[in-house]
Amino acid sequence: MTTTEYLQQHKDRFLEELLALLRIPSVSAKSEHKLDMITCADSVKESLLAAGADTVTIYPTSGHTIVYGEKMTDPSKPTVLVYGHYDVQPAEPLELWHSGPFEPVIKDGKIFARGACDDKGQFYMHVKALESMNAAGELPTNIKFIIEGEEEVGSPNLATFVEEKKDMLTCDVILISDTAMISLENPSLDVGVRGLTYIEVEVTGPNRDLHSGVYGGAVANPLTILSKMIATLHDENNHITIPGFYDDVVEISTEERAKMGEAPFNLKEFNEDLGIREEWGEKGYSTNERTGIRPTLEINGMWGGYIGEGAKTVLPSKAFAKISCRLVPNQNSHKMEKLLIDHLKSIAPAHVTLEAKLHHGGEPYVTPVDSIPYRAAAAAIRDTFGKDPIPVRGGGSIPITSLFEKTLGVKVVFLGFGLDSDNLHSPNEKYNVENYYKGIETIPYFHKHFAAMQA
Amino acid sequence: MTTTEYLQQHKDRFLEELLALLRIPSVSAKSEHKLDMITCADSVKESLLAAGADTVTIYPTSGHTIVYGEKMTDPSKPTVLVYGHYDVQPAEPLELWHSGPFEPVIKDGKIFARGACDDKGQFYMHVKALESMNAAGELPTNIKFIIEGEEEVGSPNLATFVEEKKDMLTCDVILISDTAMISLENPSLDVGVRGLTYIEVEVTGPNRDLHSGVYGGAVANPLTILSKMIATLHDENNHITIPGFYDDVVEISTEERAKMGEAPFNLKEFNEDLGIREEWGEKGYSTNERTGIRPTLEINGMWGGYIGEGAKTVLPSKAFAKISCRLVPNQNSHKMEKLLIDHLKSIAPAHVTLEAKLHHGGEPYVTPVDSIPYRAAAAAIRDTFGKDPIPVRGGGSIPITSLFEKTLGVKVVFLGFGLDSDNLHSPNEKYNVENYYKGIETIPYFHKHFAAMQA
Repeated sequence: MTTTEYLQQHKDRFLEELLALLRIPSVSAKSEHKLDMITCADSVKESLLAAGADTVTIYPTSGHTIVYGEKMTDPSKPTVLVYGHYDVQPAEPLELWHSGPFEPVIKDGKIFARGACDDKGQFYMHVKALESMNAAGELPTNIKFIIEGEEEVGSPNLATFVEEKKDMLTCDVILISDTAMISLENPSLDVGVRGLTYIEVEVTGPNRDLHSGVYGGAVANPLTILSKMIATLHDENNHITIPGFYDDVVEISTEERAKMGEAPFNLKEFNEDLGIREEWGEKGYSTNERTGIRPTLEINGMWGGYIGEGAKTVLPSKAFAKISCRLVPNQNSHKMEKLLIDHLKSIAPAHVTLEAKLHHGGEPYVTPVDSIPYRAAAAAIRDTFGKDPIPVRGGGSIPITSLFEKTLGVKVVFLGFGLDSDNLHSPNEKYNVENYYKGIETIPYFHKHFAAMQA
Repeated sequence: MTTTEYLQQHKDRFLEELLALLRIPSVSAKSEHKLDMITCADSVKESLLAAGADTVTIYPTSGHTIVYGEKMTDPSKPTVLVYGHYDVQPAEPLELWHSGPFEPVIKDGKIFARGACDDKGQFYMHVKALESMNAAGELPTNIKFIIEGEEEVGSPNLATFVEEKKDMLTCDVILISDTAMISLENPSLDVGVRGLTYIEVEVTGPNRDLHSGVYGGAVANPLTILSKMIATLHDENNHITIPGFYDDVVEISTEERAKMGEAPFNLKEFNEDLGIREEWGEKGYSTNERTGIRPTLEINGMWGGYIGEGAKTVLPSKAFAKISCRLVPNQNSHKMEKLLIDHLKSIAPAHVTLEAKLHHGGEPYVTPVDSIPYRAAAAAIRDTFGKDPIPVRGGGSIPITSLFEKTLGVKVVFLGFGLDSDNLHSPNEKYNVENYYKGIETIPYFHKHFAAMQA
């Protein structure tokens, strides 16, 4: 029996088991879910053991635990380290979900749940691929799993863990399914992820909330000031105005941009899907270039003053914003966070005090298309889909990627089966059942091709 | 026994009774306080009856009730209609209060509680003044009380009530204590209040919250767009840029401005009190002019995206702002609200949809300094303080003022005993015990002088 035949025989159970995992509200950002995080890690451990892992250990960290498992078949074979995360983003705003974020439902062939795609549904494909390879007796590689619980809060403890356990984690490639493809008709592989710098600023004007009648017009309003500051961060062409922001960006050749431009993309459908009249972005770049090869600056949250029901005539003491930048190859997150904070401080007028704190960051990453890991992934896609994948630059960030390469000395390759329409980090996150199955089918091909190419 | 002697004998009880009233959390904006509003109206009724009112009636409205009471001494005497409100602003943010907002404490001669000054402490002076006048047998006027429960939410039902009951409310002057004076050393009288237009805008970009990695840089962020819009509302001189905004403003003569400039004001103390390095405001005007004779535009609240603990990489679907304008004589709130909303719609780019709703508004008002009501109030101040009051323009709004004059055909006069430092609408609202007593002492003098001048 082949791995694909095994998948066909057990596909209903494979789906049920994923749904069970999705029912655990493993939100790493919120302390109220601490126990759910422990339950989820235990569940990941059990599923790895059931799939045929030799040993699985749950390692404590100063935050949420890391699940590590391995299936060592033969020391002479190459080793693949699978990375994934069992934590999920907060589900809010809850009122926009059509069904409970932690009560997965399947509708029109789609699994709706927080974490369905990001990343439970995707890392779980590797667990089920291990089970299939084990059952089929096709184990061309050694496989290690590192499934962490803090990806959605910036992996604050993973770097230390990888450094401390680098002997245990020795491998020939790191395989990650936490990205998207264009579609099942146009399979693609991400050859890069963007880096990230995420800060929060607090702008303080008067030392207390004031009556907007008694003081309005004579005291700087922190919301007005912060709005004015934010307004200057993009110019009329939507270039970011922070001095030096683009200094380290590697310009991409016209040929490479032309090649990227061949990826199927329909702007009308893109706009219709999002319900917008007009796209937006940096002048001189296409939508895919804006999300793939260009750095960005977004306001992820902003608040201040009275935000409750009704009206309150207050001139607030404070205004806040969460601001993040996506970074592209050769930009450094620490340098960029300093640049961002220094710039905000420099443009804050004397009427207010600005304080900034850092949430988390990560470096951009690129997998060369001529590397063995990429070629093995492309061959696997070809086996399943009958066509070559399109290499694309993903817009998201997997902050730990560059650190993996630095500490373990091997390449990272992305084998993602999500879709851009999967509502990651949004209400009604989903993952197509078919994509889940295609992933489980494809992963064993990767192991086979990688072992052969590496030999 | 004079009214002043009666006050001296009963001052401790007068204070205790006010504290009892302050313990009722009569927050009109929040539906959870509906029962507290009823309790508070009952308490006002009881206190008026105890003070000697002939009849007191609680009138239902489609919102919170209106308490009406009267003490008719002689139909040939002039009638004073006292207006006040028993509702208070929401107390949030609660964590900034040093003691419970509805657990009044007296510290350093100040009563700390929500509503201590605005307006329970001030309208209650009139209740105690009635009691004093009644006890002293000095009743030179007929007195009517209209104490409403919706001032802090824009008095949505008062206009209808006043119109329907205009025969019952017939009077010769309307007396309001809901404003501030400069200090007990420099007593002043407000000769005007600003009008108000208060709107809320909702800016929608994409039809759902998006992942800021997958979409960031290629879709307009409503928070960025709203910030850019707000940033344009004040120019570099802090003039408001809305076309036509200043069209109806009556320019004030150099002489009058010079006279206003004589009011004691210390900019250094003003800045120190607020903890700001630098004042702010419309170029060419002083701080007192900015809050008194000039219209303003303030952001009272703004929110969007992820505003919880930690970080979420979201590109939000919506951004919101509560925006209000203070208006000065000859500006009309309905005209200004249309101007404001039309302008915001006109500057909203095609990437977003802007919707606006109206919270409440009110017209500006001015009491002529040569009118009998003002002269009577000034004489009363002279009796208590031994000096003439300084006429000033107040920055706040009492939306119902102009409507009173229109419907009842008489002038409104302000006799306020608050201080600008009373933290109205803010945490740690307070009212100085001494100001409370000075108010109770002064009010009977107003009735005496008004009756004499009116005769």
